[in-house]
Amino acid sequence: MSTAEDIQGDDLLSRMQAMGAAARAAAGLLAKTPTEAKNQALRAAAAAMRAGAADILAANETDMTAARERDLGGAMLDRLALTDERIEAMAKGVEEIAALDDPVGRSMADWERPNGLRISRVRVPLGVIGIIYESRPNVTADAGALCLKSGNAAILRGGSESFHSSGAIHGCLAEGLRAAGLPEGAIQLVPTRDRAAVGIMLGMQEYIDIIVPRGGRTLIERVQNEGKIPVIAHLDGNCHVYVDAAAEPAMARDIVLNAKMRRTGICGAAETLLVDRACAEQQLPSLVDALLAAGCEVRGDAATRAVDERVRAAEAADWDTEYLDAIIAVKVVDGVGAAIEHIDRHGSHHTESIVTGDPAAAERFLREVDSAILLHNASTQFADGGEFGMGAEIGISTNRLHARGPVGVEQLTSFKYVVHGQGQTRP
Amino acid sequence: MSTAEDIQGDDLLSRMQAMGAAARAAAGLLAKTPTEAKNQALRAAAAAMRAGAADILAANETDMTAARERDLGGAMLDRLALTDERIEAMAKGVEEIAALDDPVGRSMADWERPNGLRISRVRVPLGVIGIIYESRPNVTADAGALCLKSGNAAILRGGSESFHSSGAIHGCLAEGLRAAGLPEGAIQLVPTRDRAAVGIMLGMQEYIDIIVPRGGRTLIERVQNEGKIPVIAHLDGNCHVYVDAAAEPAMARDIVLNAKMRRTGICGAAETLLVDRACAEQQLPSLVDALLAAGCEVRGDAATRAVDERVRAAEAADWDTEYLDAIIAVKVVDGVGAAIEHIDRHGSHHTESIVTGDPAAAERFLREVDSAILLHNASTQFADGGEFGMGAEIGISTNRLHARGPVGVEQLTSFKYVVHGQGQTRP
Repeated sequence: MSTAEDIQGDDLLSRMQAMGAAARAAAGLLAKTPTEAKNQALRAAAAAMRAGAADILAANETDMTAARERDLGGAMLDRLALTDERIEAMAKGVEEIAALDDPVGRSMADWERPNGLRISRVRVPLGVIGIIYESRPNVTADAGALCLKSGNAAILRGGSESFHSSGAIHGCLAEGLRAAGLPEGAIQLVPTRDRAAVGIMLGMQEYIDIIVPRGGRTLIERVQNEGKIPVIAHLDGNCHVYVDAAAEPAMARDIVLNAKMRRTGICGAAETLLVDRACAEQQLPSLVDALLAAGCEVRGDAATRAVDERVRAAEAADWDTEYLDAIIAVKVVDGVGAAIEHIDRHGSHHTESIVTGDPAAAERFLREVDSAILLHNASTQFADGGEFGMGAEIGISTNRLHARGPVGVEQLTSFKYVVHGQGQTRP
Repeated sequence: MSTAEDIQGDDLLSRMQAMGAAARAAAGLLAKTPTEAKNQALRAAAAAMRAGAADILAANETDMTAARERDLGGAMLDRLALTDERIEAMAKGVEEIAALDDPVGRSMADWERPNGLRISRVRVPLGVIGIIYESRPNVTADAGALCLKSGNAAILRGGSESFHSSGAIHGCLAEGLRAAGLPEGAIQLVPTRDRAAVGIMLGMQEYIDIIVPRGGRTLIERVQNEGKIPVIAHLDGNCHVYVDAAAEPAMARDIVLNAKMRRTGICGAAETLLVDRACAEQQLPSLVDALLAAGCEVRGDAATRAVDERVRAAEAADWDTEYLDAIIAVKVVDGVGAAIEHIDRHGSHHTESIVTGDPAAAERFLREVDSAILLHNASTQFADGGEFGMGAEIGISTNRLHARGPVGVEQLTSFKYVVHGQGQTRP
């Protein structure tokens, strides 16, 4: 695999600059590339993944051996590991992106002015997207495919532990590009494990229009602080479920359990449960019992601990913690107003849910809480581009500008105004 | 006027921090403020401007005297000067913003998922907007009113030459806020001429969500380079008109003249004229003649100079220059493809127009040129939020992210997703 080398120092800098220039050139071409050519490349890439599964697995085994030698934890090894099933899922994911509507060229709005000018707002690609991610090899396929579909060139920088796996997967994407006659500059993988590459990318504002970091807080803060390039950041998901006095108990229990325990490691997982004091006596015992029975550690305030002695005492830091684990903080609050206040103080503006049969309480919660996603009578685990019907996503943005919430192909576009006249001049 | 003092050093820092905190608190409240209260504040502010015209003129006279003593140029003095008519126009502008639709709470899209979840994308304010502008006192009124209408708190930092004028106008805005029972933190003016205030603003990422610089390239680059806060930037408008072989000559002449000469100092003014070689012999002499007759200096390539000896020789730098003056660069190109290539190399991605009767040439130009605004058979001087029907604008963004083109009240909003369920959990 030509990408699986390690380059350092000045060689790395000049190689990265060359990649930037190639990406910029490819972006100019991709903006004009018909949908069918992009889809052809994606389908051919998926086919190459299936045909090359043995090579991908062999590359992955190299990564896995190195990871085991370095005693990386089980969760890390699980994220890193590829299997036939995971490769099939990856190929299918790329085909699903091929099947999505092409956002490029689509009109977002059309109107006519009294002077006869007809104005359209039309989606265009953003340009060159730099994606910096941890050691999940499938992100190479997802991110490359999403960028291509939205007409953007991608510069991918995967985690060093998945270096060979990502190289093999990128090889399949490159094969897809060649099959469709598209330049390989359209999807490039940084050919080194050297962390200096990240710093170089962050300084390439001439070539990279936007950076998408996918990883922990440290990476995201580094990207935001070091770089001059705009960032689509995905910071904490300290998500809340608020069970209101008017909540139907069985619904509340189902939603709380699902929001916390369906998958604890995703950003839409609930981290704090707020329960209205008016229904705490009636609902809290069964909510706590259900969470404990499902294997969740419960850390509560005094009112919560009073209903079940198995509840540990919550400390101040618990209200601000994204556990990403089978732990939940529970607090009793005085109605929807106090719930909103708690979320305002401790939340991360990601995703919150209210369970209630009272439309006024729901309306107030949905209007006043300032988060990217607000749900009424539904689990916070729906915070996902696929669940929103947007197709695959590159992440969930906690930005307020440009893209907020799930970032799919539409959110990877900009727009331009196209104005048709009949000779109008401005008076 | 309580704002018209000069504060420096540590006092300034703590004063700015206090303003930031007040703005943040006001933004929380403005996000929930009903449309009518915002409109009431705007109408009361307009009334205060009319009632206080004499005070505003007196404050302006203080600024004008200082400016004349410092021998500032005539253009600067003209921008700075207020008259009864200009105050009336300013008050009317604020009333027009009151009459605009409120973007906050408006649904941008609604859809239902197969599982019954109903999803809406709803506009919300951005938060706190910092606006740094030059010495045009009316920007104080426009920017403050646009931010308030879109539910954002504003921290305004006007040019030092307009210090007293801006203070007087800001006093009217504050009167409007009081009349509607809204906090004065909603629209604040930095109470000093000290340039250090700009640096302090750029470091206030805790309190300011977005910076809008309105001014020259130096200011915008300073804001982009020094700060960590996202910027809605308005860089050069090196705009082009391309006259295609299939252009109707009278229409071409009207559009070229209007695009260049209607107002030469605005960002949508044309700076370069490209003429298709296939019609150069027929159209170029009358185009050049009309420009010269209108008092425009013409700098041309060899082919242009060949048709009229009054054309001066263009130098390489001319193709990259935003004159903002009665000067135009003219070049003969080999058809629409060469025009697109020239714009791609020299343009600033702001606004370009093609004049042609050939739909295929128009379609190609509109699709392939990567600018915020592309016009067919219309003047580039239509690059304006008002002309687009968006109401008043705070500027024209040359960003690709978030807001591109005219920035009106809608562009000063973010959004959130509101999801209505009936107890759904994620499988």
